[in-house]
Formats: sequence, C-alpha cells, structure tokens
Amino acid sequence: MRSIKASEIAALCQGRLSGPDLELKGLSGLKEARPGFLSFLSNPKYAVALPETKASCIIVPLGTEVKDKTLIECKDPYLGFAKAAQLFFRESNPKPEPGIHPAAVVSDSAEIDPSATVGPYAVIENGAEIGPRTIVMGPSFIGARAKIGSDCLIYPNVSIREECLLGSGVIIHCGAVVGSDGFGYAREGAKYVKIPQTGNVILEDEVEIGANSTIDRGALGPTLIKRGTKLDNLVHIAHNVVIGEDGAIAALSGIAGSTIIGDRLIMGGKVGVIGHLEIGDDVICLAYSGVTKSTPSRTMLYGNPGRPHMRGKRIDAAVDLLPEKLKVIHDLEKRVAELEEKLKT
Amino acid sequence: MRSIKASEIAALCQGRLSGPDLELKGLSGLKEARPGFLSFLSNPKYAVALPETKASCIIVPLGTEVKDKTLIECKDPYLGFAKAAQLFFRESNPKPEPGIHPAAVVSDSAEIDPSATVGPYAVIENGAEIGPRTIVMGPSFIGARAKIGSDCLIYPNVSIREECLLGSGVIIHCGAVVGSDGFGYAREGAKYVKIPQTGNVILEDEVEIGANSTIDRGALGPTLIKRGTKLDNLVHIAHNVVIGEDGAIAALSGIAGSTIIGDRLIMGGKVGVIGHLEIGDDVICLAYSGVTKSTPSRTMLYGNPGRPHMRGKRIDAAVDLLPEKLKVIHDLEKRVAELEEKLKT
Amino acid sequence: MRSIKASEIAALCQGRLSGPDLELKGLSGLKEARPGFLSFLSNPKYAVALPETKASCIIVPLGTEVKDKTLIECKDPYLGFAKAAQLFFRESNPKPEPGIHPAAVVSDSAEIDPSATVGPYAVIENGAEIGPRTIVMGPSFIGARAKIGSDCLIYPNVSIREECLLGSGVIIHCGAVVGSDGFGYAREGAKYVKIPQTGNVILEDEVEIGANSTIDRGALGPTLIKRGTKLDNLVHIAHNVVIGEDGAIAALSGIAGSTIIGDRLIMGGKVGVIGHLEIGDDVICLAYSGVTKSTPSRTMLYGNPGRPHMRGKRIDAAVDLLPEKLKVIHDLEKRVAELEEKLKT
Repeated sequence: MRSIKASEIAALCQGRLSGPDLELKGLSGLKEARPGFLSFLSNPKYAVALPETKASCIIVPLGTEVKDKTLIECKDPYLGFAKAAQLFFRESNPKPEPGIHPAAVVSDSAEIDPSATVGPYAVIENGAEIGPRTIVMGPSFIGARAKIGSDCLIYPNVSIREECLLGSGVIIHCGAVVGSDGFGYAREGAKYVKIPQTGNVILEDEVEIGANSTIDRGALGPTLIKRGTKLDNLVHIAHNVVIGEDGAIAALSGIAGSTIIGDRLIMGGKVGVIGHLEIGDDVICLAYSGVTKSTPSRTMLYGNPGRPHMRGKRIDAAVDLLPEKLKVIHDLEKRVAELEEKLKT
Repeated sequence: MRSIKASEIAALCQGRLSGPDLELKGLSGLKEARPGFLSFLSNPKYAVALPETKASCIIVPLGTEVKDKTLIECKDPYLGFAKAAQLFFRESNPKPEPGIHPAAVVSDSAEIDPSATVGPYAVIENGAEIGPRTIVMGPSFIGARAKIGSDCLIYPNVSIREECLLGSGVIIHCGAVVGSDGFGYAREGAKYVKIPQTGNVILEDEVEIGANSTIDRGALGPTLIKRGTKLDNLVHIAHNVVIGEDGAIAALSGIAGSTIIGDRLIMGGKVGVIGHLEIGDDVICLAYSGVTKSTPSRTMLYGNPGRPHMRGKRIDAAVDLLPEKLKVIHDLEKRVAELEEKLKT
Repeated sequence: MRSIKASEIAALCQGRLSGPDLELKGLSGLKEARPGFLSFLSNPKYAVALPETKASCIIVPLGTEVKDKTLIECKDPYLGFAKAAQLFFRESNPKPEPGIHPAAVVSDSAEIDPSATVGPYAVIENGAEIGPRTIVMGPSFIGARAKIGSDCLIYPNVSIREECLLGSGVIIHCGAVVGSDGFGYAREGAKYVKIPQTGNVILEDEVEIGANSTIDRGALGPTLIKRGTKLDNLVHIAHNVVIGEDGAIAALSGIAGSTIIGDRLIMGGKVGVIGHLEIGDDVICLAYSGVTKSTPSRTMLYGNPGRPHMRGKRIDAAVDLLPEKLKVIHDLEKRVAELEEKLKT
C-alpha cells in the first residue's frame, strides 16, 4: 500500500493542516496507533488519550492543540475520519481483475459488463444484467432478468431473485436475500392457498443491505428501498414496503407488509413495525420499540407499544415505581376506611 | 405467455361470470391495471377505485355492480384472486427442464428422479433422494440420506442437512437452513460439553419455510412441522419442537426447544415462545408477544409476558394512564393526611 | 457402526457399572429405546418411564435402582449422557477423507493442511489457512488471509470474510457469516458516509456459531468471542463487541457495537443489548430482556428495560394488578371527596 500525505487527507476532509506534511502509513485508534500513522479524535471524552498517543498525525476538532503532532482540524472530525478511512481502504484493497471466473455459470442471455467481476460459483440466470465495475462474489445467485447497476458489491452466499432491480453503488452483504416471496396467502377453509408474489424488489443507488437480511418481493408491484438507505444484519422487510431515502435500520428489526416510511428514518435494533402503516419523514424509533400506529413526521418513538419518546420514558419511570405505589394504595385504603369509621361514630 | 379466458378463471374461482368472455393478459391491482388485464376487489375500502380502473375484468364480491366491465362474482374474492394469480403465474413461469446440471456434484448413491431438476453448484450427498418434479436450485446443499418428496422447490443458498425428510409440495426459500444442530450442551464445571444432535427435521407436505429461517434438528428424535404450515423469514424453530397443521408464523419469531403446538397456529411477527410448553389448537399469538406458559386451545395471546388478549389490552390501557394516576395517588396521600390531621384536632 | 461396551461408557462418564457388561448399539430416549440400546435418566420427573423402558442399559443418578438392567450410576447423568452421545456419534459419523474436492476453487497462496477436507464449491481465497483435520463443507466462502485452526467444522453456505481468525475446534453452522462489515457511518448532511470496517473477527477455541448468525468485523481492531462460548441461530454480534469465555447466547439475540461482556454469560432467546456497555462475569439475561445499562458481575436481568430479576418479576406482578388497582384509586378518590365534604359541614 502506498503512503498518503497528510495534506491529501486534509484536502479530502476540508480540514486545516498544521505541522509537517508527513507520509502516513495507515489509520488506527488513538491508543493503538504507531508512529507514522493517522488517528482521530471526535468524541471529546477520548481527549485524555491525546497526550499519550503515538500517532504522528491526528484529525481533531477545530481549535484543538496537541504538541509535536501534525494536526488536521475539521469541523466534523468523525466525517473526516470516515473519508480518510475510505481513502486508506481503497489503497489497500485494490479492485479485483474484471472478468468472469471460469467456474461461474452465466446464461448466454445475461449481459455482464466487461469491467465487471464475476467470482467462482456464481450463478447468473437468463437475461440478468451486471453493470460496469460491479463485483459479484461467489458462491451466489442472480436470478433471471435481475438488473444490477454499476459499482455494486455483491458478497458471497447472496441470493438476488428474478426481476429485482439494483441501482448503482449498492452493497449486499453475505447471506442476504433480495426478492424472496412475500408471506401472502388466502384461506380456503383451514388451508392456506399461496398467492404468487409477482412483484419485485427495487433497491436504489447507494443502498446497503446487511448480512442475512431478507427483503421480500411485492405481491403485485415492488418493494422499494430508496437512495442511500442502509440496513444492518438480520433485518426483515416484508412485501410492498416502501422506505424513503437516507434511512438506517439496525439489526434484527422487521417491517411488516405494505407499510410506507418517509425519508431519513432512524431505527434502533430489534424494532418491529406492523403492516399497512404510514410513517412520515425524520421518524426515529428507539431500539426495541414496537410501532403499532401510523406516525407523523419528526416523531421519536419509544417502547412497546411505541409512544412518543418523552411519554414512553415517563411511563417507564411510572412503572418502575409501581410496586411501592401499590403499597401506598393499600395503605390509603386502610387509612380511608379508618377515617370513614371515625366519622360514622 | 398465453392469454387466459375470463370463463376459465370464473370456473377456477367457482365464480359467476357476467359480461363478455374476454382473453386476459395478466393480473394487476385496480389502480395499476391496463386494458386487457384482470384485477380484483376484496377489501371494500378499495371500492372507490372501481369506477377509475382500466382493468377489463374484475373479481368482485357477490352482488357488486360495475358498468362496462366483465365481472367474476365470488363468495371469497381474495381466494379467487389467489387462484387466478396461481394460474397466471404457472403460465408465465414454465418449469425448468428436468435433469442434473453438469456443474452439480451429486453422489453416486443419491437417487434423483428423472423428472427432477438439479441446478448448478448444488451438492447432493450420499443416499439423498430427490422426488419427481422437484427443483433444487444451486448453489445449495442437500445432506446425506435427506429425502425430498415430489413437487418441492428448493431455492438457492439453502442447506438441508443429513437425514432430514421433506414431504411433497414443500418450498424452502433462499438461505433457509433445515436440520442445523439444536442448541444442546451439558456442563462440566464452567465448560459446555456438546450433546450431538442425532435427531432430524421432518417437514410434511405443503410446508413452506421463509428466507434465512432456521429449523434445528432434534437432539434425539425429530423436530416436526406438520402439513400445510407456513413460516415467514428469519424464523427460528429449536430442536424437538412440534408444530401442527395449517399454521402460520410471521417473521423474526422464535420457538424454543421441545415446545409442542397444535393445529392452525397463527403467530404474528417477533413472537417468542419459551421451551417445553404445550400450546393447544387454534391459538393466536399477536405480534411481539412473549409466550411463557402452556396455553389451552382457542386462546388469543397478547403482550409480554403473554396474557389473554382482552386482559393484555386492558393492562396496556392501564399502564397508559399510570403517570397521571401516580399524581392522583400523591394527591390522595396529601388529602388523607389532611383529613387525619383535622380529625385529630 | 461398531457396538460400544457398557464398561467403556462407564469409564468415560466416571460412572459405576452394575449388571452385565453389554454391547450397546446406540443411544435413545427412555420411551423410544429398543433392547440393546443405552438410555439415560437425568430429570427425576421422567423416572416414571424407568419401569417401562426397553433400554438394556441406563445412565442414572447415584443410588438409582432398576431391576434387570445394566446401570451406570453417575454424579451428573446429563453430562454422562452427553459424553456417551459424543462417543456413539463419532462411531457412526466417521470423518470424511482428507483432501480438496476437485470442484473447489482454492487460491495457490492458500495453505490447506493435508489432513483437512475441503468440499465441493468451496472458495478459498489468497493466503487463507486451513488447519489440520478441519472440514470446510461447500458451497462456502473463506476470504483472503482468513486463518482457521485445527479440528474446525465449517458447514455449507457459510461465509468467513477476509482476515478473520478462528481457533481450534470451532464449529460454524450453515449460513452463518463471520466478518461482515460493522454498521458504521458518518453523516454528511442527510447522507451516510460509509466507514470502512478494517478490523476483523477473532473466534477462540471451541467457539460455536449457530445457523444464519452474523458476527460483524470490528471498525478498527477485532470483534472477539473468547474460548468455549456458544451462539445459537440468528444471533447478531455487532462490531467490536467482546464476549468472554464459556458463554451461551440463545437464538434471535443481538448485541450492539463495542459492548464488552465478561465470562460465563448466559443469555436467553430474543435478548437485546445496547452498545458501549460493560457487562461483568456470570451475568444471566433472561429471555426477551432488553439490557440498557452496564451491569455488574453475578447479576440476573429480566424484562425490558432489563432490571435485576427479582425487581423485574415484582414489577410484572404489580402491572398484572394494575387494572383492578386503578378502580381502587377511583374509588378512593370518591371516598376521600365524601370525607372532605362531610368534614366541611
């Protein structure tokens, strides 16, 4: 890996460089960094580690002073760290050679861009399209007529079923499933009659799907995840759900069928959302919440059933006092009975 | 895809046809349908879309009138829709050619029915059996002596471990695991000593297992899911669980070891059931419930810990009032103290 | 499979043999056992099955008497059963032949021990190492420079990403993912900027990872699961989590990023733990708990938010009484108002 100059990183982060313009070998935490390495400080509570760090260069908040170090002062040092990390990562992880591995089964009617890479034991079915610079690692499965845009990264053991559409810059982590059948049945007496799920899944540009997450195809029409939304691992998205742009959903959460969610959703881990709801923009669901009602924009939900955050926390606090309050109630009953008795006489 | 006559669909749905017996090209929602297409109305709240729809033929509830349309009146239009959708789906998705893909590794001692299809990068081990018209898509793994009946559909990236038995018409979605080891250990001091899980999994006819769901094999004897039961995605079934016929379990639910459940279970999403319980027939567990006790037939459970539905809802309503009621208690304490003071004097 | 002498099993279990030293053909439950088979009694509530069992030899608690049977009396019959089961299992499941299946893609720079087995459709990338007697079943993926120790068992459809380190005796069940990217982003306006996850995952000796579980790699530095810890299915471990030795985590649980947990953790199913906590040794989290605070050693947590077990149960009991107590409060309000009225006059 080539070294990267501190000035190159400062330019990337729109930061102000002070001190010598060193060649930096890599990026580490403040405690772990060795001489020649870049580190960063974003959370002020870690500032205590600054005097001890062996890092030669540090991305710091504006106005931070550290003796004998090259500093890159940034308005948002965490964002600066992210961009520097991307640069180091690209340098140390060159793209694989383009081309189709001989041990891949690619349909004659599939269209693989010459700049794409298809790994061993990938299966690519009839009419599928793989865009420029996209990497499909094997073993994996790309179904018939699925279309994958440019600069995507499909990790091993992924299944993308027929007709699904992925934009550009989409990342699908190991074991994830895109386009599995929605869970839809009619009943004939006690028996379930399967409703063929004939829709698809659309993942817009820059969507990222975590390991072993599952996105069901629509019953009729698509399940849609819009630009820039990120899903963590083991997340379930049911048929015909729509999720807006720039959302983030943490692990083990699930959204039931046909729920429509706006932009910039933030969902903690293990959240459940029932079906057929409408959720506005800029909604935050704290970890472990259960969302049972349609929710207007700019709401923070907490608890199960999910309530506005402050109300939920107040209810939690009240429940916490309940055992003692039951004693108070018991005591009050006695005292009121005594008072009633006294007033009778 | 060939067109299908309205009369053929009416016969399939046991519906009454009125209007011209059109050739229909496909099936869509009322809003999305183009001329020449079939649509359906089952939820009366969507009846407002009837006058505007471009569909040429509509499956409707008995007695519905729509001008200038071919109608198929059905007692259960949703069931009619399901059956029509299955017919269109079969017509537009012909079965793949039978045969074993050259890039599949099939043990000499495995028995593959000549009408079955085995896809690329499928691994089929010693003594496994694949029944008539069953499709095993690759990459996937079928372990030694596993037996898969007729007309099954095994999607890519599925693992079916040794000795597991699948009936006919079983569907296993992408990434699901059938027959993983149950989570069983003895302790020797602090250390866990693994108990080999020597049972298997039995999935009866028409069972469907959702994407990335996991069904553990029994410790001794089988884990059993009976005829017609459907599992959604990311569901976990532990060792030696028994689930009756015609059940449905929504995503991210889990059932702990050795719990026995009757027929026609309905389980919402994110439900947990602890181990060694007995659950009767026709039990409904609403989404997000925690089932902690054995439960008689015909019970609807809600909440965590799960309580009979009406009780659970009443407790929720009471908890909702709690912050205000704590103020009332506080106020009562003061007023009772004042009364006591007054009566002293 | 060869028979095993009762005396061999008694020695293995450090048990006392009484009765004829029979050749035993296998191991079954008390009810299912046929003549010639070994069975066991550990839970005294199953002692009623003893007089009826057809088993020829039984592992029993010290001092148990059963007429006409060969007995192996053990201090811990469940542990004895585990060890006997392991012996029978090894006898009936001989290790596969060592060697690399011709249908596996192994990088020239990978080092595969000659005693290891690599199955069909395994992909093993640059610089990966597979230790002695380890079995990698295919289809599966072992990333660049990943190192897998001796006597490991990697089931099909597993993904182990680059740089991850597995000790000896590690078992990874079907569909599990080791080393997926942690869920880490900085924000630039509304957009998420991905932070490359450049750490890895370290699984120490005897760790077991359940089917379709996901262990994310660290952002910087490792995610670490220490010796002997066992994970059930569909468990999520986020980046930079540390879990101590000899822990057990049941299905559908999740631990958020950077949480540090001590030794001998016991976690029931569907538990959630938020990020950046410190959890001591010997902590027990009962099923369905939500852990929201750092927790000292030797704590048993229950409920959501998780509270010390006895407190959690007491709160549950109080909540259970709440609807009736609200009536009492309502009644008290009336009675106090009447008393106040009386005292006014």
